[in-house]
Amino acid sequence: MAAFTPLNPDYEARVRASFAKQRAMHSLGIEMTALAPGRAELAMAYDARFCQQHGFVHAGILTTALDSACGYAAFSLMPADAAVLTIELKTNLLAPGRGARFRFVGEVIKPGRTITVSEARAFAATAEGEKLIATMTATLMAVRERDDVRE
Amino acid sequence: MAAFTPLNPDYEARVRASFAKQRAMHSLGIEMTALAPGRAELAMAYDARFCQQHGFVHAGILTTALDSACGYAAFSLMPADAAVLTIELKTNLLAPGRGARFRFVGEVIKPGRTITVSEARAFAATAEGEKLIATMTATLMAVRERDDVRE
Amino acid sequence: MAAFTPLNPDYEARVRASFAKQRAMHSLGIEMTALAPGRAELAMAYDARFCQQHGFVHAGILTTALDSACGYAAFSLMPADAAVLTIELKTNLLAPGRGARFRFVGEVIKPGRTITVSEARAFAATAEGEKLIATMTATLMAVRERDDVRE
Amino acid sequence: MAAFTPLNPDYEARVRASFAKQRAMHSLGIEMTALAPGRAELAMAYDARFCQQHGFVHAGILTTALDSACGYAAFSLMPADAAVLTIELKTNLLAPGRGARFRFVGEVIKPGRTITVSEARAFAATAEGEKLIATMTATLMAVRERDDVRE
Repeated sequence: MAAFTPLNPDYEARVRASFAKQRAMHSLGIEMTALAPGRAELAMAYDARFCQQHGFVHAGILTTALDSACGYAAFSLMPADAAVLTIELKTNLLAPGRGARFRFVGEVIKPGRTITVSEARAFAATAEGEKLIATMTATLMAVRERDDVRE
Repeated sequence: MAAFTPLNPDYEARVRASFAKQRAMHSLGIEMTALAPGRAELAMAYDARFCQQHGFVHAGILTTALDSACGYAAFSLMPADAAVLTIELKTNLLAPGRGARFRFVGEVIKPGRTITVSEARAFAATAEGEKLIATMTATLMAVRERDDVRE
Repeated sequence: MAAFTPLNPDYEARVRASFAKQRAMHSLGIEMTALAPGRAELAMAYDARFCQQHGFVHAGILTTALDSACGYAAFSLMPADAAVLTIELKTNLLAPGRGARFRFVGEVIKPGRTITVSEARAFAATAEGEKLIATMTATLMAVRERDDVRE
Repeated sequence: MAAFTPLNPDYEARVRASFAKQRAMHSLGIEMTALAPGRAELAMAYDARFCQQHGFVHAGILTTALDSACGYAAFSLMPADAAVLTIELKTNLLAPGRGARFRFVGEVIKPGRTITVSEARAFAATAEGEKLIATMTATLMAVRERDDVRE
């Protein structure tokens, strides 16, 4: 991955404050475990309350964590006057959401003044080691001067 | 939309039993409000616990409901020996997830023996009426003879 | 579909002039057969030169026509100072690209100052009538003040 | 990338024979420049005949090359009785299709008996070196026992 220089030297405090306000992260038990310019890593324990009919973590819940990983990777590179919104996201489910714990790694592949593209991968911790279970590509937008969208 | 004839005359009981087992639906407060062959409608009240940093319902939570709408629309047309898994999904976020209540309509656009493609739309109930806030295209797979994936 | 009011009263001349400059359309034999605010329709005859190994029109060629349908639907609603670029596109292939002739219908589902989302469908003319063979969702951007991107 | 063992020891002859039958590749001037199990690399020179209105290679033409790169990466891992079809593809356009020459690298990220997922990247050769201009995720299907789909 390319090394990125953040436009906002306070990017870490800003990302962490925003993440703390994402009540969905707290409700789903998703934590931010690492952060660097253009890269965010989240983790979640398996929780039967967020599963689908076969006992796998619901594709939408994996998507929720992947989207936040993509979004905060993007937000870490945005200037101090910008907020971040997801325009679109795509998830490929490669294997069932089964495992004791899940790790989500989001990385920016193309930062931009208005549009940033991130990719993320979800890994399940299983008895045989970590397994790639899902991938995401997401398009994020830097939003400015909108009263309802401020960080 | 095309009219579909279900392969399984008991499709409704089967879909509703599967939906009842999706603990994620219960945990997020998502209900199935209508079902027909190739079409499923879900609803969810706004809940601050599942929001992102600006107080909008998280894109991943909207995706969770849209994915279940697509999946059950597809599952309603599958034969009795098949289970359903999402292979991939894509969400476009058109407007913030803001409103008192949300409605999700999933419809099959191409049923198939192995692969089914569904589309879904999310609407927010606002003071000015219903507003289209997100769309999904999802690819679903009929899975047979897998011990860990049975309905 | 919603009825749209174009911001540029000369939208038709502008769209047709831009389409005429897309040499890829000419090279692939794709024509614009209808245009309205927020809606563009293209057509292409089957051509073995643009097929894949089984003699079906290549998925990427169908995507080329669908992308132009989405893009010109979006461009028809943009103001006179904006050019249009595709940010991302997604195609679902529902049936092989087989038939004497193909029709592509693109429609805007959400216009915006910066971001517009369009959907398109591809139909094949077959002996049994028209058949839906592919769908697209595309995200388009209005670009201003860039010397290399002007209409 | 993971190292893959091909199920078909003759995978290279089989892939190259199929590629040679893709008349679209020939018509667009796209060549296969490298092949390994689970990986295919294609190249194309800039050609004004396949450009959009600003003189960039059309997003759909880039998609055509990316789709073939994804498809042949997948096909290289399939058994001798399977043909390959694209179910869906998604392209993110990161920078304009501008440059003397383009390179497309497709890699399998998850092979499967029925469903394979590949990713691809497009690079432009520019005066400043190679530049990432587009990415794709594609879902491919192994098709058996269909008379119209044989390799």
